[in-house]
Amino acid sequence: MFNKILIANRGEIALRVLRAAKELGIETVAVHSTADANAMHVRLADESVCIGPPPARDSYLKIPEILAACEITGADAIHPGYGFLSENARFAEILAAHNIAFIGPSAQHIRIMGDKIEAKATARRLGIPVVPGSEGAVTTDEDAMRISAEIGYPVLVKAAAGGGGRGMRVAHDETEMSAALSAARTEAKNAFGDDSVYIEKYLSKPRHIEIQILGDGKGNAVHLGERDCSLQRRHQKVWEEANSPALNQEQRDRIGMICANAMADLGYSGVGTIEFLYEDGEFYFIEMNTRLQVEHPVTEMITGIDLVNEQIKVASGAGLTFRQEDIVFNGHAIECRINAENPSTFAPSPGRISYYHPPGGLGVRVDSGVYQGYTIPPHYDSLIGKLIVHGRNRVECLMRLRRCLDEFVIDGIESTIPLFKNLVDNQDIANGVYDIHWLEKYLATGPVFE
Amino acid sequence: MFNKILIANRGEIALRVLRAAKELGIETVAVHSTADANAMHVRLADESVCIGPPPARDSYLKIPEILAACEITGADAIHPGYGFLSENARFAEILAAHNIAFIGPSAQHIRIMGDKIEAKATARRLGIPVVPGSEGAVTTDEDAMRISAEIGYPVLVKAAAGGGGRGMRVAHDETEMSAALSAARTEAKNAFGDDSVYIEKYLSKPRHIEIQILGDGKGNAVHLGERDCSLQRRHQKVWEEANSPALNQEQRDRIGMICANAMADLGYSGVGTIEFLYEDGEFYFIEMNTRLQVEHPVTEMITGIDLVNEQIKVASGAGLTFRQEDIVFNGHAIECRINAENPSTFAPSPGRISYYHPPGGLGVRVDSGVYQGYTIPPHYDSLIGKLIVHGRNRVECLMRLRRCLDEFVIDGIESTIPLFKNLVDNQDIANGVYDIHWLEKYLATGPVFE
Repeated sequence: MFNKILIANRGEIALRVLRAAKELGIETVAVHSTADANAMHVRLADESVCIGPPPARDSYLKIPEILAACEITGADAIHPGYGFLSENARFAEILAAHNIAFIGPSAQHIRIMGDKIEAKATARRLGIPVVPGSEGAVTTDEDAMRISAEIGYPVLVKAAAGGGGRGMRVAHDETEMSAALSAARTEAKNAFGDDSVYIEKYLSKPRHIEIQILGDGKGNAVHLGERDCSLQRRHQKVWEEANSPALNQEQRDRIGMICANAMADLGYSGVGTIEFLYEDGEFYFIEMNTRLQVEHPVTEMITGIDLVNEQIKVASGAGLTFRQEDIVFNGHAIECRINAENPSTFAPSPGRISYYHPPGGLGVRVDSGVYQGYTIPPHYDSLIGKLIVHGRNRVECLMRLRRCLDEFVIDGIESTIPLFKNLVDNQDIANGVYDIHWLEKYLATGPVFE
Repeated sequence: MFNKILIANRGEIALRVLRAAKELGIETVAVHSTADANAMHVRLADESVCIGPPPARDSYLKIPEILAACEITGADAIHPGYGFLSENARFAEILAAHNIAFIGPSAQHIRIMGDKIEAKATARRLGIPVVPGSEGAVTTDEDAMRISAEIGYPVLVKAAAGGGGRGMRVAHDETEMSAALSAARTEAKNAFGDDSVYIEKYLSKPRHIEIQILGDGKGNAVHLGERDCSLQRRHQKVWEEANSPALNQEQRDRIGMICANAMADLGYSGVGTIEFLYEDGEFYFIEMNTRLQVEHPVTEMITGIDLVNEQIKVASGAGLTFRQEDIVFNGHAIECRINAENPSTFAPSPGRISYYHPPGGLGVRVDSGVYQGYTIPPHYDSLIGKLIVHGRNRVECLMRLRRCLDEFVIDGIESTIPLFKNLVDNQDIANGVYDIHWLEKYLATGPVFE
């Protein structure tokens, strides 16, 4: 097992990783920017090293500074959290060359899954259902037209190197297709320096359903069920739940086992998430994230399994200590991402938290790095905490969530708590009937937040 | 189901009950003393009524004022919490006469179990193992001597009306017996106005193990496993866990089923706890508490069952919604009672909390009515919160507890957190090897708290 883990991240996920390391009896090193010197994970870590100023490219993304911090402190492993360097294959290779363990999958697997076209081809090869479309990038407009006609309109034109919705266009028929291709190519070139695009069947009201997997790199892999992350705004997840209200047990078992078997075949090591669009009983692979997800706690709540703990153990060379049949799924969990934002405009609201009191009691978990008197810096994303609620069933979970939102006090800044207070009382949410467009449509109706 | 529940209590348990009521969609009324006007449960309740000044006998124990508050607010049920009026049979009868539901068992069952001698006779009749001793009060010293010789020294002389260790004496042989009898009688007379005493076999190094039960008053009852509450100081529980590290599965199933069957026979309604001393594989009934216990959360953590929710449903006339075989026990839980006390002297430390930050993350629950800026009044017991931690097994639970104790910040007053930081690192605790005398012996060694 590792002696000392350096946490190459900030905010709530840095604290999350620190907690898991502490619970394994492993020492921790926080690296931080000058803007994060007072962050809670820095205060709680055994050691801390300042690695530069904001923004992230001058600190959290600076590989040499992070390596130097490892050397100074004698850390023998790095946990990258999510974002930043967590899916940087080169970083994983550099660490390997320095005999520092990367708490994540192999560089090769990061690289495969980081290329959308190669990821899709790999998924198809491993038996994971993929959305019908071009096999790889389309080079000419004629090919794009022919493939679109085969799979049937509407289709989606997507940047091969893309993410976050950039370089993405819908075409409902042939006449829209030319414009969509050229717009997507231009945007992709500007955003990613690569104008390769590919074509996929467009789903009109899909849900976002993703499978959590865990492998030990020795040919053993399990799935830990699905998460429904359909409530999104601008492709950012806002509310996540496990299980999905849309699936029955046979469906979740089937897609879960497909993913677990695929990861066993691949020899995948660590945690990962295989993301799907789901519509009319069918799953369509979108991408695989080769890291911990923001929304991993809902899976932990229904399985009792600490994913970061397992991630660390697997990275240290341990085999899986449980089999698929040992995993017991229990109840329902919902996570709300609390952002420091105006709940109507989503304008960031950094600043000093003048009062902070999280909810407590049975089935309630708060993952947050903030505290009363903490000043949220303006340099990073606005996620300041996650409220995760567990209940024996979805109804109990929703009632508990409502109660917790009433108790949660964050003063001095604006937060998205009022949005969640509205959502938890919404009839579509109560019924579990929502797709990936639901939230944006709802927000377009101009809901009033207290 | 009830429309409005009046919570006839204060502190963390008032908040606990309020949370359960809210999650059932039931309105809440807080009653409070003038000293508790700023309590969190008062702030969060739908309505609140001041019922008098401290101490409790002038407010929380004033039945007419509580009834008036019910009438003013239209509350149709009262939850008594623990302590105060929770085991007052007369209170339950008065409520029945006013058509207000008492969220607890029948007055008759409260009365039976409130009388230690009758409780023991009832337990024996119901097949619950009792400690050998006099059947009821002993009237003469000669009877006491004869019975003690029969069951064998050492024996315990206990006040029939007693509790909290008052009116209790140990005699190791016949010569000590006369003094023990007269001392116990005098103390019992002074403390309870009743000098009846009884004799029991004295166990030298017992554990305190208690069984949580739940009945619906219709002949259905289940047990929810045991709690080990052996870590006590002056008969006050300090640290509680579920399951007990001392029992094997066969033992816990056996004593659990004995209790569940006994409660089904009795037609018991509501939650209750059957307390035992345990030594060398044998259980000895001590008493039954006909109410929610302070330490009920550890049971909730390993079963996922909300005991207050079930209590309310059963009191409203609903039958049990699950059977014994539906209850799944999962992992291990530990509760630490955080008191506003000096951890060495246990002197109360009321006052203003200048900074408060509870721990968070997976498997962590904080039940507390305090908040930053809150002033703990000097009039009541010093329990200000409970830290409850769950893990897949006892080792994980202890590691998580240690991590949480490091995160927990309560400034401005003294608390017992430093005591728990020592305990969690103690080898006897790690091994689960402790009896009801362990903590007092440990404290007598003069441990140093940071």
